[in-house]
Amino acid sequence: MLRIAVLGCGRIGQMHAANLAKHPRAELAAVFDVNRAAAESVAKAQGVTAAGSAEEIFSSDKIDAVLIATATPTHADYIEIAVAAGKAVLCEKPIDLNLERVSACAAKVANAKVPIQIGFNRRYDPGHSAARAAMLAGEIGDLHQVIITSRDPSLPPRAYLEAAGGLFRDMTIHDFDLARFMLDEEPTEIFAIANALIDPKLGAELNEVDSAMFVLRTASGKQCHINNSRTAVYGSDQRVELLGNKGMLLSDNRKPFELRRFTSKTVEASEPYLYFFLERYHEAFMAEIDGFVACVEKGAVPLASFEDGRRALILAEAAYKSMREGRLVRVSEIAA
Amino acid sequence: MLRIAVLGCGRIGQMHAANLAKHPRAELAAVFDVNRAAAESVAKAQGVTAAGSAEEIFSSDKIDAVLIATATPTHADYIEIAVAAGKAVLCEKPIDLNLERVSACAAKVANAKVPIQIGFNRRYDPGHSAARAAMLAGEIGDLHQVIITSRDPSLPPRAYLEAAGGLFRDMTIHDFDLARFMLDEEPTEIFAIANALIDPKLGAELNEVDSAMFVLRTASGKQCHINNSRTAVYGSDQRVELLGNKGMLLSDNRKPFELRRFTSKTVEASEPYLYFFLERYHEAFMAEIDGFVACVEKGAVPLASFEDGRRALILAEAAYKSMREGRLVRVSEIAA
Amino acid sequence: MLRIAVLGCGRIGQMHAANLAKHPRAELAAVFDVNRAAAESVAKAQGVTAAGSAEEIFSSDKIDAVLIATATPTHADYIEIAVAAGKAVLCEKPIDLNLERVSACAAKVANAKVPIQIGFNRRYDPGHSAARAAMLAGEIGDLHQVIITSRDPSLPPRAYLEAAGGLFRDMTIHDFDLARFMLDEEPTEIFAIANALIDPKLGAELNEVDSAMFVLRTASGKQCHINNSRTAVYGSDQRVELLGNKGMLLSDNRKPFELRRFTSKTVEASEPYLYFFLERYHEAFMAEIDGFVACVEKGAVPLASFEDGRRALILAEAAYKSMREGRLVRVSEIAA
Amino acid sequence: MLRIAVLGCGRIGQMHAANLAKHPRAELAAVFDVNRAAAESVAKAQGVTAAGSAEEIFSSDKIDAVLIATATPTHADYIEIAVAAGKAVLCEKPIDLNLERVSACAAKVANAKVPIQIGFNRRYDPGHSAARAAMLAGEIGDLHQVIITSRDPSLPPRAYLEAAGGLFRDMTIHDFDLARFMLDEEPTEIFAIANALIDPKLGAELNEVDSAMFVLRTASGKQCHINNSRTAVYGSDQRVELLGNKGMLLSDNRKPFELRRFTSKTVEASEPYLYFFLERYHEAFMAEIDGFVACVEKGAVPLASFEDGRRALILAEAAYKSMREGRLVRVSEIAA
Repeated sequence: MLRIAVLGCGRIGQMHAANLAKHPRAELAAVFDVNRAAAESVAKAQGVTAAGSAEEIFSSDKIDAVLIATATPTHADYIEIAVAAGKAVLCEKPIDLNLERVSACAAKVANAKVPIQIGFNRRYDPGHSAARAAMLAGEIGDLHQVIITSRDPSLPPRAYLEAAGGLFRDMTIHDFDLARFMLDEEPTEIFAIANALIDPKLGAELNEVDSAMFVLRTASGKQCHINNSRTAVYGSDQRVELLGNKGMLLSDNRKPFELRRFTSKTVEASEPYLYFFLERYHEAFMAEIDGFVACVEKGAVPLASFEDGRRALILAEAAYKSMREGRLVRVSEIAA
Repeated sequence: MLRIAVLGCGRIGQMHAANLAKHPRAELAAVFDVNRAAAESVAKAQGVTAAGSAEEIFSSDKIDAVLIATATPTHADYIEIAVAAGKAVLCEKPIDLNLERVSACAAKVANAKVPIQIGFNRRYDPGHSAARAAMLAGEIGDLHQVIITSRDPSLPPRAYLEAAGGLFRDMTIHDFDLARFMLDEEPTEIFAIANALIDPKLGAELNEVDSAMFVLRTASGKQCHINNSRTAVYGSDQRVELLGNKGMLLSDNRKPFELRRFTSKTVEASEPYLYFFLERYHEAFMAEIDGFVACVEKGAVPLASFEDGRRALILAEAAYKSMREGRLVRVSEIAA
Repeated sequence: MLRIAVLGCGRIGQMHAANLAKHPRAELAAVFDVNRAAAESVAKAQGVTAAGSAEEIFSSDKIDAVLIATATPTHADYIEIAVAAGKAVLCEKPIDLNLERVSACAAKVANAKVPIQIGFNRRYDPGHSAARAAMLAGEIGDLHQVIITSRDPSLPPRAYLEAAGGLFRDMTIHDFDLARFMLDEEPTEIFAIANALIDPKLGAELNEVDSAMFVLRTASGKQCHINNSRTAVYGSDQRVELLGNKGMLLSDNRKPFELRRFTSKTVEASEPYLYFFLERYHEAFMAEIDGFVACVEKGAVPLASFEDGRRALILAEAAYKSMREGRLVRVSEIAA
Repeated sequence: MLRIAVLGCGRIGQMHAANLAKHPRAELAAVFDVNRAAAESVAKAQGVTAAGSAEEIFSSDKIDAVLIATATPTHADYIEIAVAAGKAVLCEKPIDLNLERVSACAAKVANAKVPIQIGFNRRYDPGHSAARAAMLAGEIGDLHQVIITSRDPSLPPRAYLEAAGGLFRDMTIHDFDLARFMLDEEPTEIFAIANALIDPKLGAELNEVDSAMFVLRTASGKQCHINNSRTAVYGSDQRVELLGNKGMLLSDNRKPFELRRFTSKTVEASEPYLYFFLERYHEAFMAEIDGFVACVEKGAVPLASFEDGRRALILAEAAYKSMREGRLVRVSEIAA
């Protein structure tokens, strides 16, 4: 059994703790949060102990790995400490909001003897990954276009938005990673526009946006479009479309169940899509844990690696540059 | 050009006249209706002449074929006269409400030198016929079960119901024919129940029903279910499902266009299905004409033959007997 | 925490043990199986003890309830013993293959002070129960027709079929219960046909069938069709359709994920449906446990009661009578 | 009856001639083509006369309107001549490949006393126009994003591509128009990338592209993405998606019929989409004629006006500029 501690007992830490507890080859070894009450609550729910400090976890010889779900500014430090302590790492995205910090961290952990996995859970989604597998198997011939639709059901609270680091680093970063994952080739150019359409005050008060469109292109000319919105009232809208010269693949949205209604006004009306990303990507989060456990067991490189986390952030930086300058930006313009 | 006259200028006669006029290898030669004004109206709309009598049409050497869309009690007589006059016949269903009359007519036209086609338009529906073709091509292996859902959008006017001859002879007759068409083997047993659920007064006042369920079986054990309702508020509900030991085929409902709506209440809500059978089966009615023209040109036996019309009526009679006696009736019990 | 023991550690007992272990307000207290090794294996996997005998469980004051998943012939006895011991019961269907035994058991447990729930898991399926709720809320007006499609992906092993008690008692019993649940009124008449189409040897050697069709009707005239097959190669086919005078509701099949393929041959081709009933009805099995725990906590009557189990068996008996006699059978003809 | 002559008897002229012939309030008055044989063939098929010259048509007092379906370089001239002759005009897109010529033509016909309609048939598509109507009726609240997917089933012949004027002016021009139609506000900025992915030789030999992505934005910040491909092997892929803060609308693809296949490999596999644009947009082409006839009858401005034709070409020019310069181009940079 792989003994894993969870650092950070907020919403996503709680979910990971519960998921870990269900894994047949892993066990939740301990939890920690700077908010002691939060840690105690999760510890009690899962029947484990709440560590008094993060150090307690890093220094314990009863812990093999850590799942880092703390506030973003602590991620890079914790990764470095964990690696130094020989603990495998599964760290939530983003690694850091600052690319220089991420690159410095990369240098430090370059020779890590343990796997470091980044929380790009969508790579593990059964639908998305089956789409990619079918594409790699040649089902659609040569890949030409990727369309990623990624819309959250509603605007997060203002406090969240103030700390999140901006739409591109917080939300689109998943889509930048998914774009790289699906294109199977590095994007070399990127273009972005963004606006505060849902809540215009976001722009005036936070210099933030809530609706965005992107175009990416690889060296061989493969094209990718991403669109984002913070308000899809019909549920979590998470689609990936792959067009090739021999066909198309679509990983479509998920419903809680398949009830269809037929009236004199409309037919085939279904239950709204799974609303919150925790439900929408439930299987993905479970598979993410499973993938992590398997990598630690085998000493393999995770499907979502540290470098993947750094590359997605580079794309976010390039996208911001494109938005500011109104032009197609070469990804190589971002000093990585 | 095949010169075809239309007898009967009611709703369905008008449609056939318009469809004929569009066929590249047929021409509408004349129209007739006992209601002179109705005939004149169609004649004017299509730019042809309204015959003064049916005889005028049957005796004309400028007419090759007749499409009989008059009141049901005239069908058998007109078929016999047309055949005697050497005119090919496309006659609306049912041939007659009385099975003895139909069998007598069958005897008279047994050696007809012209094709006689019955208006079982659903055999010509692109979806239904592609389902059958796929089944015959072996796509689903051995056929085991056929499920026919056949529901009209709303109850016809009382006057129509009084003359229609009962649900089984008027409406289900299409489904009995479709069952034979899809089973690719003669049903030997039938069971029926029916009720007046939509308008209970139909039962009390007309001894009529509006909702029914049937089970049919062939000698080799293939099973078929038909369900009927006179009120599907979501549009014409016309589905055919074929289950075999290697798969299933479903000919599904048709929408006028593919607009889907997504709100916080429901997703993928589409425009109601095509409402009226004239719209739902528009392509089928066109293909029916085309099939008729081709049969006359080649002297071939129509896909929907006189005998098919008679067999469907036998099933209706057997179904009534089953309903009255509350038992599985052998089709051979109906003296044909 | 409700302490529940699982009797029977076969396929379905294993699943229930695992599900129970995940419930927040229940705990798996012990397991038992006449096959000691099977019990030990489940006990080890779940970290509980394997009882040496069923009696040990019934007499333990550390056990509040039992989940009976043993061989069918033991069900009625165990229910009686459990009730006498004051343990709440969740018993897999069918209660017994013999209706007299079931009725005798009913008499014995008539004044039970504990809830007795029967394993009609489909009542707890999110899609099916949402369909019923919408119908009861008046969304489709008056209910007229219910269509239940219930097809297993493949024929069970011969040994299973030999002990199962026949298609109607083993498989259709779920659909008979679902029919009662959806009709919201007792069926008073039933008609059945059945054949061995998938494996004709079943008929010759076991007097068993694998394909069946049923028609049921209530006193007020509501109609219900059920169709069964033991081979739907495209996955577990479990649909419920409710037609009313103001609309239709359809609880449709479930896919593992929503990947759609588009080629020059077909479009919108999806992953086959969830194959095995354990996967197809996973949420239903979880909700069934949850419903049971809630009923025990509140002393409430389960959604799927002992009487529901008995009524479904009466319908199975009536259906066999109909099949043998080739007629519509009144349910009251079965001495209950 | 509105008497309409068709100029140009190629593929699309033939289709228009046949459509016109079916309109209840229009009649095909004559046809013309520089290829006399082509004109004779259409004339014979439709039972009309083939004019000896275009002038013959423009000077005839038996012709009320012209439908211009000749080679693109003749469009602007014919529009000017027709307007001078007092004939209403329905002209295929594009008006001309040269924006200056279009603007000059605009000046000349500025005071036309007859309607001039441009062949942006997609505005008349039942699904697309119902989506727009629902959006304008407020169904999705404020419009934020428009996604237009527009893919042809296969690459046109080399000869066609050589004369077509480039992807943006030939194919995307429909989507630029649709973007304007759906955004209900003028796009002020545009970004484009394009590649020859399907046939790399197109780039080297014709300086042409076959795959493209665009981002447009209006002054108020509404965002629009268009993607194009010349090879969607699964049929004509023509989708329009409208996202608002209260919901989403999707005008989806069309199938010839609704046959779905279920096997052990895939479920719900449908017939490929209508393949060729003539079939996919059949209803749109019919409605386009109907809209034209109604505009001439009422002296109304067409839904697709001359200015719409000019604006779409401006967007094409701006898109080419964006592609060349790798930046977001303001539409106002194009001297119109």
